[in-house]
Amino acid sequence: MSGSTFGNIFKITTWGESHGKGLGVVIDGCPAGIPLCEEDIQRDMDRRKPGQSRFTTQRSEADKIEIMSGVFEGKTTGTPISLMVLNTDQRSRDYSAICDIYRPGHADYGFETKYGFRDYRGGGRSSARETLARVAAGAVARKILTQLGICVDAYTVSVNDIMIDRNNFDLNERFNNPVVMPDKNAAERAAELLDKAIKSLDSVGGVIECKVTGLPAGIGEPVFDKLDASLGRAIFSIGAVKGVEFGVGFEAAKLFGSQNNDPFFSENGEIKKRTNNSGGVLGGISDGSELILKAAFKPTPSISQPQYTVNNKNENTQIEIKGRHDPIVVPRAVIVVEAMTAITLVDLLLMNMSAKIENVKKIYNK
Amino acid sequence: MSGSTFGNIFKITTWGESHGKGLGVVIDGCPAGIPLCEEDIQRDMDRRKPGQSRFTTQRSEADKIEIMSGVFEGKTTGTPISLMVLNTDQRSRDYSAICDIYRPGHADYGFETKYGFRDYRGGGRSSARETLARVAAGAVARKILTQLGICVDAYTVSVNDIMIDRNNFDLNERFNNPVVMPDKNAAERAAELLDKAIKSLDSVGGVIECKVTGLPAGIGEPVFDKLDASLGRAIFSIGAVKGVEFGVGFEAAKLFGSQNNDPFFSENGEIKKRTNNSGGVLGGISDGSELILKAAFKPTPSISQPQYTVNNKNENTQIEIKGRHDPIVVPRAVIVVEAMTAITLVDLLLMNMSAKIENVKKIYNK
Amino acid sequence: MSGSTFGNIFKITTWGESHGKGLGVVIDGCPAGIPLCEEDIQRDMDRRKPGQSRFTTQRSEADKIEIMSGVFEGKTTGTPISLMVLNTDQRSRDYSAICDIYRPGHADYGFETKYGFRDYRGGGRSSARETLARVAAGAVARKILTQLGICVDAYTVSVNDIMIDRNNFDLNERFNNPVVMPDKNAAERAAELLDKAIKSLDSVGGVIECKVTGLPAGIGEPVFDKLDASLGRAIFSIGAVKGVEFGVGFEAAKLFGSQNNDPFFSENGEIKKRTNNSGGVLGGISDGSELILKAAFKPTPSISQPQYTVNNKNENTQIEIKGRHDPIVVPRAVIVVEAMTAITLVDLLLMNMSAKIENVKKIYNK
Amino acid sequence: MSGSTFGNIFKITTWGESHGKGLGVVIDGCPAGIPLCEEDIQRDMDRRKPGQSRFTTQRSEADKIEIMSGVFEGKTTGTPISLMVLNTDQRSRDYSAICDIYRPGHADYGFETKYGFRDYRGGGRSSARETLARVAAGAVARKILTQLGICVDAYTVSVNDIMIDRNNFDLNERFNNPVVMPDKNAAERAAELLDKAIKSLDSVGGVIECKVTGLPAGIGEPVFDKLDASLGRAIFSIGAVKGVEFGVGFEAAKLFGSQNNDPFFSENGEIKKRTNNSGGVLGGISDGSELILKAAFKPTPSISQPQYTVNNKNENTQIEIKGRHDPIVVPRAVIVVEAMTAITLVDLLLMNMSAKIENVKKIYNK
Repeated sequence: MSGSTFGNIFKITTWGESHGKGLGVVIDGCPAGIPLCEEDIQRDMDRRKPGQSRFTTQRSEADKIEIMSGVFEGKTTGTPISLMVLNTDQRSRDYSAICDIYRPGHADYGFETKYGFRDYRGGGRSSARETLARVAAGAVARKILTQLGICVDAYTVSVNDIMIDRNNFDLNERFNNPVVMPDKNAAERAAELLDKAIKSLDSVGGVIECKVTGLPAGIGEPVFDKLDASLGRAIFSIGAVKGVEFGVGFEAAKLFGSQNNDPFFSENGEIKKRTNNSGGVLGGISDGSELILKAAFKPTPSISQPQYTVNNKNENTQIEIKGRHDPIVVPRAVIVVEAMTAITLVDLLLMNMSAKIENVKKIYNK
Repeated sequence: MSGSTFGNIFKITTWGESHGKGLGVVIDGCPAGIPLCEEDIQRDMDRRKPGQSRFTTQRSEADKIEIMSGVFEGKTTGTPISLMVLNTDQRSRDYSAICDIYRPGHADYGFETKYGFRDYRGGGRSSARETLARVAAGAVARKILTQLGICVDAYTVSVNDIMIDRNNFDLNERFNNPVVMPDKNAAERAAELLDKAIKSLDSVGGVIECKVTGLPAGIGEPVFDKLDASLGRAIFSIGAVKGVEFGVGFEAAKLFGSQNNDPFFSENGEIKKRTNNSGGVLGGISDGSELILKAAFKPTPSISQPQYTVNNKNENTQIEIKGRHDPIVVPRAVIVVEAMTAITLVDLLLMNMSAKIENVKKIYNK
Repeated sequence: MSGSTFGNIFKITTWGESHGKGLGVVIDGCPAGIPLCEEDIQRDMDRRKPGQSRFTTQRSEADKIEIMSGVFEGKTTGTPISLMVLNTDQRSRDYSAICDIYRPGHADYGFETKYGFRDYRGGGRSSARETLARVAAGAVARKILTQLGICVDAYTVSVNDIMIDRNNFDLNERFNNPVVMPDKNAAERAAELLDKAIKSLDSVGGVIECKVTGLPAGIGEPVFDKLDASLGRAIFSIGAVKGVEFGVGFEAAKLFGSQNNDPFFSENGEIKKRTNNSGGVLGGISDGSELILKAAFKPTPSISQPQYTVNNKNENTQIEIKGRHDPIVVPRAVIVVEAMTAITLVDLLLMNMSAKIENVKKIYNK
Repeated sequence: MSGSTFGNIFKITTWGESHGKGLGVVIDGCPAGIPLCEEDIQRDMDRRKPGQSRFTTQRSEADKIEIMSGVFEGKTTGTPISLMVLNTDQRSRDYSAICDIYRPGHADYGFETKYGFRDYRGGGRSSARETLARVAAGAVARKILTQLGICVDAYTVSVNDIMIDRNNFDLNERFNNPVVMPDKNAAERAAELLDKAIKSLDSVGGVIECKVTGLPAGIGEPVFDKLDASLGRAIFSIGAVKGVEFGVGFEAAKLFGSQNNDPFFSENGEIKKRTNNSGGVLGGISDGSELILKAAFKPTPSISQPQYTVNNKNENTQIEIKGRHDPIVVPRAVIVVEAMTAITLVDLLLMNMSAKIENVKKIYNK
C-alpha cells in the first residue's frame, strides 16, 4: 500500500531511488502567498549534501533542487509544489556482489520478501538518499514557520559515548565542525573516534536533539495525532532511528511525580513553566515552552568488514560491503530531523486552525 | 481538526470522556467472517479495569463492553463494529477546586488554549480512561492476529529504578502480581516502593516492553508508514509515554556497526538472525524475528502534594489534587500497549496484502 | 476496507444496521464552542422518521437521538461527538423467505459476494435506515453553517413524470405535503400517482433539488476535492441515487458556449452573475452564486409483486417482498440530501481556511 | 488544503500548470511486479495530445512521458512511480488582456478569491492540461486491470443534439473520427456542427459514456466509498463535467420499480441479470454486469466572441478570448474519463482484498 505520503493538510509525497533518474517531493496544501525560490531550498539541501567532510560519502552529487510547479511570480500559488533533484553521479558499477545477498542491518531482506524483488543499486528506495526529498519539503515548511516566529534547530548531542557538555553549549558552533555538535571540545573528540572507526572499517552511532522555540500552546490533535505521536512517527520514519524521546524521556520513568511535574507560573501576564521535563508537550498538546526531542541513530549498517549473512537462495554466505558509505549517519541526519520536525509542525499548526468556532468565524468575517 | 481516527484499512475512531455518558470505538475495515463475542473483548477490558489492586484507582467501574453493530450470527460482517462502555460511576463531585486551575503535568492548559474551554470533570477527553476504547479495539485486532499465528505480549520491565532480572523472566508471572512484571522478585520490590510513594503522596513511573512473535517478514510500508514509524505514533499516542525504542534502542547509538548489525543465517531453509539488536525491524520493514519495543511512562501527574501552578486568569496559585488516582499508570497501561501494537500490526498486515501483483491475482483468481 | 468515514477535517464515521441494536455516528473535527443540544438534532431526525405519512413505512421508530460525548455545558468541546439512536421496533420476523434469496435492485448479491455472508434482516447495513446517522451529523453541520450565514434547502422537484411548476415555487409549501414538493398543485398530483402505485404493488422514483445560499466564493479544493467532486461523492453515496447534476447539468451538453457561460457583472462593489447555469461552481470552486444540485432517485426496489431472481445456491426462483416499505424513497431522502450537502460544505469550508498564508497569520496573530 | 491526491491504496498525486515547467503525477501503492515501460503510457498520452484533428487546439506539444522512478528492470518495484511531461510549447504571449479579468465560465474568479492571486498563464492549474497527469496514471492502472481481465472503454455518445444511434454502434469506429463516436454517421454530422460552431466563434458540449467489462461482483466499499460514489467523485473532478449518471440514470426517476428492477437469473452456474438498468452497481457494490456511466460536459468556456464580465478591481468590462482553444472538450476528454475510471477501479479492487478473513489467510498462507 501507499506509504509515501505524510501529513494531513500540509501533505508531502516523496519519490525516487538512489540510482534512478532522480528524487523528488510533491508538497500539496502549502498556503498561497509565501515567497519561495530555489535558493531558499538549496540552503538546506547543501546541509545534507554528500562530500562536506571526511566523514561523509565522497559520492559527488550537486543535489541541485528544481522547483517544477506551484510557484508563480516568486510566490506559492496554493497548488502543488513539485521539487526535484536529478541524480548525476549514478556511477556505473558492478552490483553482482550484492544483488542477491541480504546486507545485515539493511532492509534488503524485508524489501525482497515484501515486493518479490528489489532495486539492489545502492539500496534503491531504502537508501538514505531518500531523505533528500524530505529536506526539500522541510525547507518550504520552515518558510512558513519563520512567518509565525517559530525556529527549529537540531544538532548532535552524542557520538558513540562522547556527549556534549551542556555547559559548553554553543548553537552556532554546530556549523563549524563535521559532526554538527554545539560543543567544540566534544566535536574534536568525536572526530578522533570517527577516524579510528574508519581505520577499523567500522561505523558509529549517535544521538540528535531538536529544539523548537516560538511554538504556541495548543498545537497537537488528541488522541492519535498528538504533537508527540505525530513527531514520533515523523522521526521514526527516518532510516536508522531506533529511539525517540521528549523532554527527559526515558529518564521520566525513574522520577517521582513530584520531581517530574513542571510547575506553571505566571509572569507579566504570560504562563510559563519553572522546569521543562515535559519537553514542551503535555497530553499531546504543546504547552508553550520549548519543544525538545531526541533521536537515537544506529551506526551505519554498511561496513567493509566481512560479515556473515545469507543470499536470496537461502544459502549461508559472507559479504564485504565496498563503496562510498558514511561512517556515521548522524551529521547529515541533523537537517533531516529538522525537516521532519518542521513538516510535522506546519501540518499541526494548520490542523489547529479550525479548533474553535471563533477561528472559523474570524476567517469568514462573521 | 479530527485526530481521533487511527489506521488506514483497519481504522478505529474513539470517542468519550471520563465523566460523560460513556466511551466507545468504531472499528471500520475489520474483515468479515471472524468469530467475535463480547467475552472476547471483556477479557482484555478487565485487564485495564480500575480496582484490580491497591495500586489502581478505587473508582468502581464495571467497564462492561457492548457490541452495538457489525456482528451477525456470531461473526463480523465486514461493516463497522461499534463498541461501547457506559460510565456508571460518574460520582457527583465538587469540581470548583480544579475547574479553573491548570494541573501541572496535565493537558488542562493545552486543552483550554486550543479549544477555548475544557471539560474539567476528571480531565474529560484527556483522561486515561480514554484508553478503554483502544483496549476494546485491540481485543478485536488480536482475534485477527491469532488467526495468523501472531502473539502480542507486553509487561512491565521497570518501576522507577527497579528493573526485572532477565534471568528470572517468566511471562506467566506477570498476571500474578499487581505491577505486571514477569519477575516475581522484582515485582515484590516494586510493590514496596509503590507503598512508600503512596504514603508520601507521590507517584512513580516505569517502562513497559512489548514482544511480538510470529510476525512474518515484509510488514511495514516505506517510507512514512514504516513498521517502527507506525508503532512509534501508536505508542506515543498513549498518554504519559515520553520515550519509545525498538530493539536495543538508545543503546544502539553507543554501538559500533560491527556490534549492532545482526548477522543473518539460514537454517532448515529458513532465514534467521544470530542476534536481534534491531528489535525485528530493518528499514521500517519486519525482518522475521521477534518485534521488541519499549515505552517509558512518566509518573502519574495527579499527586496529592501541594503544587504551585496558575489558574485560567493567569494568576499564581497552589493546588492539591484529591480524588481517586493511580500512583503509577504502568500496570494498567500494559494492556493498552498490547492493544495499540495489535491494532497497528493488523492495519499494516492488511496494507501489505496488495504489495505484489501476484497477491492481487491470487485474490481474484487470475 | 474501511469506507464508513466521510470528510477530511469535519470527519464523520457511521455505524449500525437496520435490525441491530442501534445506529450512530461519530463526528470528529467539529470546532469547539458551538451551542448544541439533542433538540437541535431531533428536529432533522423527525424529518426522515418513518410513519410521517401514508407514503412512508409504518415501522414505528421514535428515532430518538442521544448525544453520548463531545458536548459539555451545552457547547461542543472540540472532541468527538458521538450520536446514537437505539432501534426499538426490531419486530421479530420470519426471514426464511429472503435470507438466501437475492432481491432484485438490492445490494444482497453484492454484499454476499464481497463479505461471504450478509445480515439479511432488513438489509442490515445496506438498509436506507443507515441514512439516519447522516441526518444526525448533518444537523450538527447545519449549526456551523448557520453561524456563517449559509442555508441548505432541499425539496422534491419531480415524482415519476410529475414535475413542479417553477412559477408556483413556494419553498415553505414543501412542509405541507407528504411528497415535500414546493408546489401544492404538483404535490397533489404526485400523491394521486403514489396511491395508484401502492394499489398496483409498485414503487416510484423522483428527483430532489438542493439549493445553498450564502456560500462564499472560493470553496472547493482542486483538483480532486473540488466542490462538485466532493458533493458528487456525497450524494452518490446515498442509496438509490442514479444521477447527479449541477446547475443546468446534462442540459449543458446541448448548449453552445455563448449560451452556457454566465456573464459576471459588478453591482455595488459585489461580483455577481447574470445567469447561473453553472449552479454556483466553476472549475470546482464556488463562484459566489447559489449552489444548485439535483439528484435522481430510482424507485424503491422492494415491491410486493412477484419477481424472478436467484438464491445463494445459484438456483432460479421467485420472490414477493412483504413487509413495511416506502413506495417512494424521495420524501424521506430530502433531509438526507440536505445533510450530506451540509456535511460536505462544512468540511470544505474548514479545509479552505489555510488556503492563504494571510489566513494562517490571522489565526496566529502574526 | 491539499486536494491533489486521489485514492486510498492506489494513490495518485498530480502537480503542474499549463505554462509552468511541466506536469506530472506520483503513483504510490502500485503493486510490484507489473511490466511497465514508457510506451505503455505514451499510447494513452497520444490519445489526449493536442493537434490530433481540426477540433483540437493547435498548441504543439509532444507530451512525452518520462518514468522518473518506481520501475526497475522493466517492472514496477512497489515504490512510488513518478511520471513527468515537460512543457515544450510555453509560447511567450502577452497576458495583459486577461491577467486581471475573470473569464466567464472559468475558475479565475474562484482561484483569485481562494488563494489571493492566480497563475493567469493559460489558466495555470485550472487548465484542462492538468488532465494529462491523470491519463498517465490511468495508463498504469489499466496495466493492472488488464491482468485481471477488466476492460475500460469510453466514447462520445452525443455532441450538442446529435446522438449516436445504438443500432449503428461500432466501438472500433471511435478511433476513426475526430469526435470519438462509435457511429460513423453521427460522427459526420457532429463534425459539420462543429465546423459551424467554429465559424460562429462558439463552442459545443457533449456526453461521454464509459463501459467496463470483466469487473467482478463485490467491488465498492459501503457506505461512503461505494463504487458509484467513488466514480462520481472521480468523474466530477474532471473540469467541465456538469452531470454524471449510472445505468439509466436520471431516467430511473421516471420508472416504476417493476420496470427498473433488473431480474437476476442463473445460467450455467453463473448469476446474471436480464436487464442492466442499474449500470452494474447496486447498493454501491458492483453486481457483476457491465458497469455503465455517462458524463455531461459543458461547452468549452473559452470562446472568441465578446463577453461581458468584470476585472479584479470589480469593474464591469468586456473580454474576447484569443488563443488556441478546442471548440469542444469532449473528444480529448474521452481518454480522461477512461483514466479516472481505471484509477478508481484499481483502488477499489485493492481495497476489497481484505474484505473477508479468508482472503487475509490466503495471502499469509494460514
